[in-house]
Amino acid sequence: MAMPTMIYGHISATQATSNTTRFSLILTQQHQEAVLDHHPQTKTLNKANRLAESLAHLLHLHIETPPKTNNPYFSSWNMFTEENHSTPTTSPKEIISEKWREIHGSNDWEGLMDPLHPWLRREIVKYGEFAQATYDAFDFDSFSEYCGSCRYNKNKLFDVLGLGKNGYAVSKYIYAMSHIDMPNWLERSHLVETWSKDSNWMGFVAVSDDEETRRIGRRDIAVAWRGTVAPSEWYEDLQRNLEPIGDLDAKVEHGFLGIYKSKSDETRYNKASASEQVMKEVTRLVEFYKSKGEEVSLTITGHSLGGALALLNAYEAAKTIPGLPISVISFGAPRVGNHAFKDELNQMGVKTLRVVVKQDMVPKMPGLVLNEGLKKFEDITGTLEWVYTHVGAELKVDVGSSPYLKKHGFNLPGFHSLETYLHLVDGYLGKETSFRSMARRDFALVNKACDMLVEDLRIPSCWYQLEHKGLVCNNHGRWVKPRREPEDIPSPTREAEAQGHALQVEMQSDYVPSISKIKCEY
Amino acid sequence: MAMPTMIYGHISATQATSNTTRFSLILTQQHQEAVLDHHPQTKTLNKANRLAESLAHLLHLHIETPPKTNNPYFSSWNMFTEENHSTPTTSPKEIISEKWREIHGSNDWEGLMDPLHPWLRREIVKYGEFAQATYDAFDFDSFSEYCGSCRYNKNKLFDVLGLGKNGYAVSKYIYAMSHIDMPNWLERSHLVETWSKDSNWMGFVAVSDDEETRRIGRRDIAVAWRGTVAPSEWYEDLQRNLEPIGDLDAKVEHGFLGIYKSKSDETRYNKASASEQVMKEVTRLVEFYKSKGEEVSLTITGHSLGGALALLNAYEAAKTIPGLPISVISFGAPRVGNHAFKDELNQMGVKTLRVVVKQDMVPKMPGLVLNEGLKKFEDITGTLEWVYTHVGAELKVDVGSSPYLKKHGFNLPGFHSLETYLHLVDGYLGKETSFRSMARRDFALVNKACDMLVEDLRIPSCWYQLEHKGLVCNNHGRWVKPRREPEDIPSPTREAEAQGHALQVEMQSDYVPSISKIKCEY
Repeated sequence: MAMPTMIYGHISATQATSNTTRFSLILTQQHQEAVLDHHPQTKTLNKANRLAESLAHLLHLHIETPPKTNNPYFSSWNMFTEENHSTPTTSPKEIISEKWREIHGSNDWEGLMDPLHPWLRREIVKYGEFAQATYDAFDFDSFSEYCGSCRYNKNKLFDVLGLGKNGYAVSKYIYAMSHIDMPNWLERSHLVETWSKDSNWMGFVAVSDDEETRRIGRRDIAVAWRGTVAPSEWYEDLQRNLEPIGDLDAKVEHGFLGIYKSKSDETRYNKASASEQVMKEVTRLVEFYKSKGEEVSLTITGHSLGGALALLNAYEAAKTIPGLPISVISFGAPRVGNHAFKDELNQMGVKTLRVVVKQDMVPKMPGLVLNEGLKKFEDITGTLEWVYTHVGAELKVDVGSSPYLKKHGFNLPGFHSLETYLHLVDGYLGKETSFRSMARRDFALVNKACDMLVEDLRIPSCWYQLEHKGLVCNNHGRWVKPRREPEDIPSPTREAEAQGHALQVEMQSDYVPSISKIKCEY
Repeated sequence: MAMPTMIYGHISATQATSNTTRFSLILTQQHQEAVLDHHPQTKTLNKANRLAESLAHLLHLHIETPPKTNNPYFSSWNMFTEENHSTPTTSPKEIISEKWREIHGSNDWEGLMDPLHPWLRREIVKYGEFAQATYDAFDFDSFSEYCGSCRYNKNKLFDVLGLGKNGYAVSKYIYAMSHIDMPNWLERSHLVETWSKDSNWMGFVAVSDDEETRRIGRRDIAVAWRGTVAPSEWYEDLQRNLEPIGDLDAKVEHGFLGIYKSKSDETRYNKASASEQVMKEVTRLVEFYKSKGEEVSLTITGHSLGGALALLNAYEAAKTIPGLPISVISFGAPRVGNHAFKDELNQMGVKTLRVVVKQDMVPKMPGLVLNEGLKKFEDITGTLEWVYTHVGAELKVDVGSSPYLKKHGFNLPGFHSLETYLHLVDGYLGKETSFRSMARRDFALVNKACDMLVEDLRIPSCWYQLEHKGLVCNNHGRWVKPRREPEDIPSPTREAEAQGHALQVEMQSDYVPSISKIKCEY
């Protein structure tokens, strides 16, 4: 991975676990989870947990709470880790150019899902990693004046995150705002002077490089959308109405559409809506590569809310650019629109592969409560046009299938985490088969932002974080927040200018990702 | 600070705040604290908070909840930070050799506390930093086989933590265990094979070097004791009895005495008790320096439980080495023993300076409930010999005095945190005066393991933590826990052998701390 030198040995304790631990009964997340794991009688420790539990009950989630047992999978720990730690994290790449249309969903992935075709598995993980990048690079720090932006400029995003291996280059960042008061979807800085008061970085457009293009049989334009919204917030949103999209009967959840379509001349980053930004760039790229006689595809991905936005984006792209092969690969996405929306997507040939973790609550929202109620009234009303519905093919993976994951407890963030999804896809063979023994993806990634791995693996929970939360000791001995690199500070004018030249430069320079496999120095 | 090169710019997001934040309603500590700060009506979110609140009520704590206002102190933020970030973190050191006995408490610090004498302030902070080191270097990682040990060997502890500036060298580490089932005081690894199943690193003995000895007028032996116990655990312990110490009427809390005195031949690190370890080393050092004709003092420090152990240690040292000037500088320590214990300490000339944060609950425990009830019965019973009582002089500091600290809310860990104590001492002028404008200590340290700083300062809460919680990416691209440096792995035999030669080496080599002021490279 294109990370800078990291030096560890001498730096002091994990003090977040440390002094905080002295008050473990009072505050820490670790403790709460421990309580959830070991003392079922204290499960309803706080309001939020009770909300989560009642939601789970409402949605008939499969929550298994077997007694804690020793995991035979890890009975010989040393053998297991020592061997496993020195294997590559990916299998060799196959050339899939001859079969790209099927892998891209032209036949609705029939015959490729059970058992899951290894070529398809690799592609799903590739797009999932693009979606994951929108979290990994996002500035969540509300004390930063750049809260809500991407920490890195588009030219280095993939290298910093170790995604150069996937053979794509980012061509444009997408920003979104919302006129609709959708609770807390926007990450805002606490500060007065910020890079943008209204907008968040919401994803990116990327293009396959020449090598990857040869391997996958066409120039692929990938769009990745960031998800942000907590299930509890969606729950509040359940009451709201669907809104029309397009000229026909298709309707979609108005909160998602608000994020996708909102713009304001008063803003720095959303004088154009997310919709306008992404469509302008996709159109430009499609025209450019078609003019060179290349085959072109569009693949849109996203997790959670990002999966909903991906579907809206696909709908618009299919309307705008007829004949373009368009697929959506979504992870843990909620229902977005009504049956007419689904039908129109089908008619336009948009292919959707929805990856769903069986235990995850989010894909059951916001539609399920309404749907369940409505089933009883279906014959009476004679219409379901305003019912939220899922589209496309579903790949259902199960937390219970992986020997690496905790099965007991109700781990809302863990079940919904995109890294959990990617881990389960990597191990998925088919409906009736167990976890793939050759799964290569680093299991430690699962715990980046949640607590899903069995303790035998010794991977701390929520470990993906900066040393000292980004504070550095200056040469006066004071701990301060360093300034962001100027090249990584968002600037609408610079980005617009750069955009004018970007494509040509990329094409002329025979762009090759500088890092072809994950590698960190330490 | 003697830290290795730290490189930041490119490392990715504060993902602990990040993906977790997406579920902020569900889990995170940050959220709980935010709720405590801003929504008094949801104060009783969980059982632990309710316990803390009822305790606060019981103990008549001063909890002020003023409305949130703009802090005029920070009205011109840029001016404030830019200037403040480039000042040194300490004032020049004065030579105090002529007045060392008064500074060490020979006259019970009379006339030195209000206003606080700057020489005394510096000494209090120095010893407090030794106590803080026992937290900063402690391995709290329950997934580590070295959980409960010190991360660094004694020869590099001060340099790693930037304490070389204080002019002391560590001569011995102290380990403790307990036969008494004192709830959760021991940090234990989850693993089967560990460096020690029964013992924790509990502190150290250090000696002033020649330069510091000249400055402070005598060879000072410092003992620092680590604290571990959460107030909620002490609360449970309230029910228990006092135990006799010594031959007379003196009695002390049996839980503290258990930690100080327990030993077992079955253990690796407590074949000798903490008491035996520390007394053997202190005796050895006193004899060594006295034999060279030097004046020698003993100063024992500790925070929380560590303050209680410091008092037990002082009692024993005074019994064992009559005539030795002994002082205890404790921070947020609970009451330890009865009146006879206090009287004996006084008779033996042990001087105790107790630093207490007005809002901190811990110094009011475990005695207060008993004392308050007993006051009514004093005349009836005619004896208070079994009542827990505080000894010595008290330096009371007030959270409300510092413009850097949040005043509202009930922040149990924040009020009790040793870094909060050190910040308040650094700013303390006297009972009726406001925060010292020339206070130099880096305020950012306060938030190392709690959330006490006003938001205007933009310092994240609980920021003292390793990058990626100590995981590193190996050259196969897998995130793994690195092995500890062999020199930092505890080994009783090696430590015993090293001990045999340590003192001579230190004396012969004209030991000079390698770093004389805090300095980090980045």
